[in-house]
Amino acid sequence: MHLDRIIRGATVVTGDDARIQDIGIADGRIAALGISLSAEGAEIIDAKGLIAMPGGIDSHVHISQPSGPDVEMADDFDSATRAAAFGGNTTVMPFCLPVGDATLREAVADYVGKARGKCHLDVAIHLIVHRTDPVTLGQDLPALHAAGFTSFKIFMTYADMALSDRQILEVLKVAKDLGAAVMVHAENEDAIEYLRDEAERAGRAGPAMHARTRPVPVEREATHRALSLAQIAGVPLTIVHVSNGEALDEIRRARQRGQIVHAETCPQYLTLTADDLDRAGFEGAKFVCSPPPRDRAAQAECWAGIEQGDFDLFSSDHCPFRFADAAGKDRPGARASFRNIPNGIPAIETRLPILFSEGVVKGRISLSRFAAITATNHARLYGLAPRKGMIAVGSDADIVLWNPELTRTISQSDLHHGADYTPWEGFEVTGWPVASFLRGEFLLHENSLAEYCGGVIACGQPDQRAWQ
Amino acid sequence: MHLDRIIRGATVVTGDDARIQDIGIADGRIAALGISLSAEGAEIIDAKGLIAMPGGIDSHVHISQPSGPDVEMADDFDSATRAAAFGGNTTVMPFCLPVGDATLREAVADYVGKARGKCHLDVAIHLIVHRTDPVTLGQDLPALHAAGFTSFKIFMTYADMALSDRQILEVLKVAKDLGAAVMVHAENEDAIEYLRDEAERAGRAGPAMHARTRPVPVEREATHRALSLAQIAGVPLTIVHVSNGEALDEIRRARQRGQIVHAETCPQYLTLTADDLDRAGFEGAKFVCSPPPRDRAAQAECWAGIEQGDFDLFSSDHCPFRFADAAGKDRPGARASFRNIPNGIPAIETRLPILFSEGVVKGRISLSRFAAITATNHARLYGLAPRKGMIAVGSDADIVLWNPELTRTISQSDLHHGADYTPWEGFEVTGWPVASFLRGEFLLHENSLAEYCGGVIACGQPDQRAWQ
Amino acid sequence: MHLDRIIRGATVVTGDDARIQDIGIADGRIAALGISLSAEGAEIIDAKGLIAMPGGIDSHVHISQPSGPDVEMADDFDSATRAAAFGGNTTVMPFCLPVGDATLREAVADYVGKARGKCHLDVAIHLIVHRTDPVTLGQDLPALHAAGFTSFKIFMTYADMALSDRQILEVLKVAKDLGAAVMVHAENEDAIEYLRDEAERAGRAGPAMHARTRPVPVEREATHRALSLAQIAGVPLTIVHVSNGEALDEIRRARQRGQIVHAETCPQYLTLTADDLDRAGFEGAKFVCSPPPRDRAAQAECWAGIEQGDFDLFSSDHCPFRFADAAGKDRPGARASFRNIPNGIPAIETRLPILFSEGVVKGRISLSRFAAITATNHARLYGLAPRKGMIAVGSDADIVLWNPELTRTISQSDLHHGADYTPWEGFEVTGWPVASFLRGEFLLHENSLAEYCGGVIACGQPDQRAWQ
Amino acid sequence: MHLDRIIRGATVVTGDDARIQDIGIADGRIAALGISLSAEGAEIIDAKGLIAMPGGIDSHVHISQPSGPDVEMADDFDSATRAAAFGGNTTVMPFCLPVGDATLREAVADYVGKARGKCHLDVAIHLIVHRTDPVTLGQDLPALHAAGFTSFKIFMTYADMALSDRQILEVLKVAKDLGAAVMVHAENEDAIEYLRDEAERAGRAGPAMHARTRPVPVEREATHRALSLAQIAGVPLTIVHVSNGEALDEIRRARQRGQIVHAETCPQYLTLTADDLDRAGFEGAKFVCSPPPRDRAAQAECWAGIEQGDFDLFSSDHCPFRFADAAGKDRPGARASFRNIPNGIPAIETRLPILFSEGVVKGRISLSRFAAITATNHARLYGLAPRKGMIAVGSDADIVLWNPELTRTISQSDLHHGADYTPWEGFEVTGWPVASFLRGEFLLHENSLAEYCGGVIACGQPDQRAWQ
Repeated sequence: MHLDRIIRGATVVTGDDARIQDIGIADGRIAALGISLSAEGAEIIDAKGLIAMPGGIDSHVHISQPSGPDVEMADDFDSATRAAAFGGNTTVMPFCLPVGDATLREAVADYVGKARGKCHLDVAIHLIVHRTDPVTLGQDLPALHAAGFTSFKIFMTYADMALSDRQILEVLKVAKDLGAAVMVHAENEDAIEYLRDEAERAGRAGPAMHARTRPVPVEREATHRALSLAQIAGVPLTIVHVSNGEALDEIRRARQRGQIVHAETCPQYLTLTADDLDRAGFEGAKFVCSPPPRDRAAQAECWAGIEQGDFDLFSSDHCPFRFADAAGKDRPGARASFRNIPNGIPAIETRLPILFSEGVVKGRISLSRFAAITATNHARLYGLAPRKGMIAVGSDADIVLWNPELTRTISQSDLHHGADYTPWEGFEVTGWPVASFLRGEFLLHENSLAEYCGGVIACGQPDQRAWQ
Repeated sequence: MHLDRIIRGATVVTGDDARIQDIGIADGRIAALGISLSAEGAEIIDAKGLIAMPGGIDSHVHISQPSGPDVEMADDFDSATRAAAFGGNTTVMPFCLPVGDATLREAVADYVGKARGKCHLDVAIHLIVHRTDPVTLGQDLPALHAAGFTSFKIFMTYADMALSDRQILEVLKVAKDLGAAVMVHAENEDAIEYLRDEAERAGRAGPAMHARTRPVPVEREATHRALSLAQIAGVPLTIVHVSNGEALDEIRRARQRGQIVHAETCPQYLTLTADDLDRAGFEGAKFVCSPPPRDRAAQAECWAGIEQGDFDLFSSDHCPFRFADAAGKDRPGARASFRNIPNGIPAIETRLPILFSEGVVKGRISLSRFAAITATNHARLYGLAPRKGMIAVGSDADIVLWNPELTRTISQSDLHHGADYTPWEGFEVTGWPVASFLRGEFLLHENSLAEYCGGVIACGQPDQRAWQ
Repeated sequence: MHLDRIIRGATVVTGDDARIQDIGIADGRIAALGISLSAEGAEIIDAKGLIAMPGGIDSHVHISQPSGPDVEMADDFDSATRAAAFGGNTTVMPFCLPVGDATLREAVADYVGKARGKCHLDVAIHLIVHRTDPVTLGQDLPALHAAGFTSFKIFMTYADMALSDRQILEVLKVAKDLGAAVMVHAENEDAIEYLRDEAERAGRAGPAMHARTRPVPVEREATHRALSLAQIAGVPLTIVHVSNGEALDEIRRARQRGQIVHAETCPQYLTLTADDLDRAGFEGAKFVCSPPPRDRAAQAECWAGIEQGDFDLFSSDHCPFRFADAAGKDRPGARASFRNIPNGIPAIETRLPILFSEGVVKGRISLSRFAAITATNHARLYGLAPRKGMIAVGSDADIVLWNPELTRTISQSDLHHGADYTPWEGFEVTGWPVASFLRGEFLLHENSLAEYCGGVIACGQPDQRAWQ
Repeated sequence: MHLDRIIRGATVVTGDDARIQDIGIADGRIAALGISLSAEGAEIIDAKGLIAMPGGIDSHVHISQPSGPDVEMADDFDSATRAAAFGGNTTVMPFCLPVGDATLREAVADYVGKARGKCHLDVAIHLIVHRTDPVTLGQDLPALHAAGFTSFKIFMTYADMALSDRQILEVLKVAKDLGAAVMVHAENEDAIEYLRDEAERAGRAGPAMHARTRPVPVEREATHRALSLAQIAGVPLTIVHVSNGEALDEIRRARQRGQIVHAETCPQYLTLTADDLDRAGFEGAKFVCSPPPRDRAAQAECWAGIEQGDFDLFSSDHCPFRFADAAGKDRPGARASFRNIPNGIPAIETRLPILFSEGVVKGRISLSRFAAITATNHARLYGLAPRKGMIAVGSDADIVLWNPELTRTISQSDLHHGADYTPWEGFEVTGWPVASFLRGEFLLHENSLAEYCGGVIACGQPDQRAWQ
């Protein structure tokens, strides 16, 4: 048996459990798992004391996404994928959003072009569907699906992207016909706009109003509505960035009705609260994302959802802006309103250490469950399996080695994203990814990156069963 | 790398997914998984077209269990484990029940003695705790736990075994201190006895009354009570043989409260109904088990629980009696009442084919999920992992090969259990286990068994997290 | 004590219970309740064996409402109030809907004009709010509210009337400021239109498609959405014509969250099913209303809601069209689609006997509860109390006398509405209103009507507590 | 029309609403309600500015009840009914409990004897059924039921009274056959005893342990169990003294299943918390009752249940002991444990003012609802209607006049019960009963009582519909 490289002695995490064994790599793939593997000429990597995990897949990141006339996203493919790689990932999935008159196919060509040669790890692309004209639904989506873009994201909020219920049903119909996966951002746009106007009329404009104008019922409502439309259309649906127990209960109810629903949460809903948006000065702007972080009780409900298996996916919803830009919005003379704070936080590099530390080290979840919700399930749902997401014979050797005992304090000065702050400044974590492999070659090694070794990859058909 | 034997070309099922790869076996364990494994001198087993699954673990079977003065269980270790092996299992877990004045330790010694030399596959033993005297709780359980008997079963029904709530709390306390797993048969004894007396007073004595005197609220009540006691004691709990959606809802509610609950269902609740107990003549006696099969709606609720991941375990609750004996109870002169029909049905050999056919072949669940609920989770919960329950490097090579296309009609004439009938007579299934290995050696091969190659094994500490 | 008239010996129904006593009437009001009342010169009406009930208030009827270019509603104020009076009512509440450019105030003036001199009983008017321009919200609604039009109805379906979520919030805000009551027709317009287009594309156009294109999730979704918007706005809300248990569960959940919600159901949801829409030929068109009748299970859920007190209001949703007109839509050459069947059924005359017979006579509800949901609660919610809705000292002497033993078979030939059919043709009921008084004078007597004795009355402030 | 007495100008509260009218009384009954009632020779009582309410019925009080060898209840019929009368009641319902070998019939005779000549208001008696021998079930209950003792109370806790599930079913069966009402104290005795033993072993013995050894799951469990047994038996059931939302949710679930359930709560669950049991020294003993007061969240859940109509009954659960006695249990040398604190608090005189002030004055409930849950529903459920519980023609003139603006601070020094403290010392209330009539005669007048004017009355058949 020919092997190029053998990772020896790590605790290897699979869907079944975690145990010490060797991983044999050949031609970029995992060729063998075994006890005391050996092969002539194979490079031996000593990984004793480390944990070998499927490379992180972050299926919810925003990179170089058009964000309105005055704002530029803080990450392009270079910086975003660099930060992702340092954070233990081997694949990320950003969103392609057409601007102006561009068709979705044109937008994809353009977006792939932006990624070309700038990727430090593998990238697969979701399509944002924010128009439902015949070209988009009838031509672009089928063509792009055939070309390996098999997941669609739709929005129920943001004036320039929100779909009506009728449009949502039309997208769901196309997805059903194609077998595509659909992910939905569920917040009620009308209610938010109503509350924002009310707040502004009342002269309340600080960052904390961002959370107060997007209260839990706004998310619960849209979640139930999206799930009802999926029930009517007869398709599975993925609810992204669930922030609280009321929204999660809607998902549980849909499952009890027999619907197939996949659910995602993010580090911000486990560790931050709306109080953070109320920090002195304009600091609160650093925690502005949608849905907003809630309260301690909601955090506990999200943790319960992770522990009990209600959440299939743990993503970052990385959406990086520069605080300097946001703060600028608040200077005298400019319209100093929470409305103008760009919506999103940087999380691509800290997602995995936060969950490892708070989840695995604190005993809330097993290593297998960590791997499932940070990698395997992402690969399944979005058509990257069996190639990605698992340490299994035949899969790409996308592997990350964790030192489970390394304690670090998260600090902007150590991070690699394009944002100029991190919401987790000073947050202490135990466990950190110390090395990784992308398709069998070192990606992260002794704190340095093998640069630009990734690229845009195509997705296969999503696996939309209820997996649990 | 030394390998004794290579299973080549099967679709190998793990917790992550199912894919074609080779399994290398050495010294009774799985030594490697890989593509084109080879080793000098290794026997090659061609398994192309077959599915390699972790050998079935049936954690809920009754063998040679004392059943009252007039009744003998139809299976001893010889016949039960033979039937289990033919049905695709490699491990079964029966229950040790003390009789008379015997202590639990004496009963275990006696029960292990009955098994010695009579096991065609591996056997691990649960302890039935039906007394809570100081010797049992303070001496026997700790000693037996230390000796590898780490799971306790308690009953809320059956006059001679039912524990009071106080006793249940005391057993839960011991289990908590030891880290033992507790499984509970949840039906309200008092309510059943009340309804039975009422039925008898009304002169209604046919087998159908068995189901009517154990209605759903009787099970729902006891399920909620058991879960409340576990909440008060602060311990995980396993609810066995859940038969309907109302009981399952109690489990869902407990999980939403944050409790760790494992749930089991059985083939009878997916395929039989209370109408079967109403068959002409005394035929209904062949379907008498507790809880009884319910109706079509309850079947659908149980299937939904399997599909949505609410059930962790799929067991047989094999509890074999001879219809000839039961029918004898109905002859003139004898007390001809449903009360005297021994409680239980034979299912040890048909459990896996029924779920494979109705679940996997009909597209309700994936192969990974099949393996999880028929083997892996049993091993996790009852302390047999990582040795048993998975096709993973280092585990015992307990493997079963399925022909997924073989269609058979279940018939008593083909089965190997000691009962003289099967409730699934004439039931057609697609998919059948055609070969198996126990610790690396052929157990089932070309329709014959390698006899008496198993034995009683010790259990380690249960893994009582919420796994999903 | 002066009394004009004494109703003697009836079983008088109040909110507390039903008992035999005399009702003394003076100057159109109830002046006394007592045992053996007497007063010089008073007319004595012998009502022994009869039940004296507060005159029925039907707070959900459509009269002379604009219904699109090709359709005319089958009832004007004359025929509608005549039928209502024969059916045991003393007050009805139709809806004022502006057409074209007319302001709401102009529309009200016009609508009151249509009623003038044509009312056989008292009439109070709800306002349909289907526009949210500044004149409507800022001027018309406050002015009309001050003039005694204190309840607003909004629609989430019907293209020409449906409000967006933003508009709903704006109407709720006005209602909150004024203390007005808001009633909502909750069905998701977008989903219905999507399903209708799909049905038409599939060439399925019969009346039965009306029900199939408005399935339960369409109503459940809109119900939850409306309740969420009310939660966000912080106002009570009334959900009209609830047709099934899933929608009712949304109301129960909102109440458990602490919201004040009033709920209404109608005779069609207790006695008809979607199968009726599937009757041979075009007969199904006679049962087309929105939401549509569901199935037997949904009927049982609605009955449970009545028995358990979940429903506050039982109305007719009388919306009469001529079958001859609807059938015309189906003739060759015309667009023969369920889409063109006018939406609604006649029920104003049969509402009370159906509930009396199916509810009171069959033992499901008490006489007090009957009075509450057919009269008292309507008066409370819509600001007619304490003047209307109760047999109590000081209230208008609006009283109906029931013969609880009279059995009749409902037949179009006996009814007084303008429609040319009744959906309850042949339905047998026990209990019928044999006489009634409006403000102390005979309205219905020996099967004839005191004509045109009613008029348009103003409403006071709604009582929007949770009453139960 | 002959009238003995006319109460003039009060706001009279009925089930429909509250309005100013006169009440005419003749021969102890309400003979007329009317505007400006007059009758020759009638005494006129000017009640302008006051509220006339049906006299309070407290259907859950303990008087002279045997309480174990060392403890004497602090109230006999004299003191209890005196305090009740001063608190605005006209009827109370204590419990008859047999002691020793006495049969239930003997106990009733004895208990009626204790009441004879000592009652300041009317008294109706519930039967405690704590034995299920053939004499009790087959002879005593039917005989006593026929004699007007038509409601049974059963206990699931307290070693000397708790029934097994089998016994509960047997009592429910008798109640079903007779049409008797059954009220249940729902706490799981075994779990409580287990937790008490644990607490004592841990050396934790202060009054606060009373609440900690009766946690919410103990009550939720027993509530669900009792309701399941009632479902199996097919009878209505009343759950008394519900203390929290989890138990109330069990009641809501049972109602959604179609069961008829009546629910009661008490002032302690609306105003006290478990923290009160933790007061310095032994003061906490003053708040020991079962179930114990919970936390602020549970209070809010109970208030929501009152506002939303989930509770039918508001009673005191008056169970008076002398703190001096309880405190004695804590002196050195005696067993100083929470176990020995007599279980119960005095509330008979403060029940109505607390609910009036916190409920009516604070706008949570209407006057009609106040009357319903403090008087009318008690009369309905326990067979005292139509004679008691309503201001309606033909009923006993049991009327209480409230001054809604009188503000008082509750103080032991002003109260009339036999206990030597009140848990509400210093609690300020607005609204106080200033006069009352029992069967038409002054009972309470200018702060003095017409003594010994009441007696033991018989109950009719309970009205066990779902009333709302």
